[in-house]
Amino acid sequence: MSKLVIVGTVAFDAIETPFGKTDKILGGAATYIGLAASHFNIDAAAVSIVGGDFPQKYLDLLSDKNIDVSGIEIVTDGKTFFWSGKYHNDMNSRDTLVTELNTLEDFNPVVPENYKDAEVVMLGNLHPLVQASVLDQMTTKPKLVVLDTMNFWMDIALQDLKNVIKRIDVITINDEEARQLTGEYSLVVAAQKIHEMGPKYVVIKKGEHGALLFHNEQMFYAPALPLAEVFDPTGAGDTFAGGFAGYIAKTGDTSFENMKNAVIYGSTLASFCVEKFGTERMENLSNQEVHKRLLQFKQLTQFEIELT
Amino acid sequence: MSKLVIVGTVAFDAIETPFGKTDKILGGAATYIGLAASHFNIDAAAVSIVGGDFPQKYLDLLSDKNIDVSGIEIVTDGKTFFWSGKYHNDMNSRDTLVTELNTLEDFNPVVPENYKDAEVVMLGNLHPLVQASVLDQMTTKPKLVVLDTMNFWMDIALQDLKNVIKRIDVITINDEEARQLTGEYSLVVAAQKIHEMGPKYVVIKKGEHGALLFHNEQMFYAPALPLAEVFDPTGAGDTFAGGFAGYIAKTGDTSFENMKNAVIYGSTLASFCVEKFGTERMENLSNQEVHKRLLQFKQLTQFEIELT
Repeated sequence: MSKLVIVGTVAFDAIETPFGKTDKILGGAATYIGLAASHFNIDAAAVSIVGGDFPQKYLDLLSDKNIDVSGIEIVTDGKTFFWSGKYHNDMNSRDTLVTELNTLEDFNPVVPENYKDAEVVMLGNLHPLVQASVLDQMTTKPKLVVLDTMNFWMDIALQDLKNVIKRIDVITINDEEARQLTGEYSLVVAAQKIHEMGPKYVVIKKGEHGALLFHNEQMFYAPALPLAEVFDPTGAGDTFAGGFAGYIAKTGDTSFENMKNAVIYGSTLASFCVEKFGTERMENLSNQEVHKRLLQFKQLTQFEIELT
Repeated sequence: MSKLVIVGTVAFDAIETPFGKTDKILGGAATYIGLAASHFNIDAAAVSIVGGDFPQKYLDLLSDKNIDVSGIEIVTDGKTFFWSGKYHNDMNSRDTLVTELNTLEDFNPVVPENYKDAEVVMLGNLHPLVQASVLDQMTTKPKLVVLDTMNFWMDIALQDLKNVIKRIDVITINDEEARQLTGEYSLVVAAQKIHEMGPKYVVIKKGEHGALLFHNEQMFYAPALPLAEVFDPTGAGDTFAGGFAGYIAKTGDTSFENMKNAVIYGSTLASFCVEKFGTERMENLSNQEVHKRLLQFKQLTQFEIELT
């Protein structure tokens, strides 16, 4: 079993979907990644920052899931990062209503001493310089570094992003972001170009259309579970990344064949995340439920053509 | 081995894509379905209509692929159905430039006598009354009737379409059409509503995002093979349907598990269709190439998670 370092936001979200709206609730990339990774019984630590307004019960919630929160800095006279967004009727696009960086503006991540030799590092969506500074603190070279990012950093910090991308093994990115980063419409060609930037493995997230894993000439396609109702897509991408990184940390196997399984675990966990607002579903998700849905994924994708 | 009746257009197409444009070339739903079905060494007959302008060499091409063309009526003083379209840069949408129905306007399909007991009937995209008249001519109830349709018939002949949909086993329809037919955004809910209209099996085609097969609570998801370059999507949906129906006719097995295989065969054949303009790739496609790509589909989708 390996140790997992998770860096990312721990935040307040206020979400509006066609099904309703929330007040300020628990959110943030590191939160979703941590909740997903907690299903693998690994040693995991979250590295983040919050303000004095952040409830202790939220930190306890993560601790109860065996996420080490000693790397979450609390700025008592500061405010926690806040994001508010509204989803359109198709649930595939959203408008950001509010972004208050607050304490995040001066975030200098500090990796806990006993996690500086972690085998797996999950760099959640953050400024690429913050992501890079986490890598700088590792005393031994991690077995696998996974990075998630978004178009925002391509717009305002492209060179920093390219610099950190050079240093990682796996990038998770959505289809539009892959196209923006490479200028290529075909995801196959985009993945090739991203390989050339550094990452040996490229995961392209396509929302309701699933996720693609590329490694040179090899490809794997995991569908998203078709759902009668998507309640709130917030955090699905982070949950996917957390499931992916958590599974790799648990198994310690970075082969392409095992990464296929990691993608399936990520998709499985993400399929729960969208069933309720925010982190609600992930807070109360049993291993039995995960197991049952993995079987559904098998039935959804596996076939038995005799190839002679 | 079963007999397969194919009804659909045999046509001239003129196609424009970002990669170039064609003169009038061979096209039509029955043509693509027939070329796909020819890979299964079954007895298949095309039922269609063309004008005196239709080259004998195109009929010979189908005959050479073991498609019985005796049910293709030739109206010597008439003209062949002609369609012209232009694809947008994303290749996912297109404008119809020209539609000349010509002989298709008075098409009364006649099923060849020795095919009136065919076990599998593939009703390609045509006016629903024409599709129904083919079913009326069958002397024994087919084991499986597959119907393909499009939004055009929902706009101008919805009740006729609903009437024929009641009589079929499998519908193949794209995602937008499934939404239009049912008024439901979720494809899971749309499929349930289509089940209630009659078909026990619903195949929803999602273009580059693959295809979904529904049977009550059961679901199967076949991805499209991610391609570096889509050259011309014309006929991909018909090729998918032809591969599906052809595989069922060959195996004579209409179980859900075997339909999964049929969907994979359909997806595999469709992945070739888009590689060149029109029917060009399908005219020269070897069984070895198909076999090799089926293996790619396995690698693309199959995984080995131990579920204990």
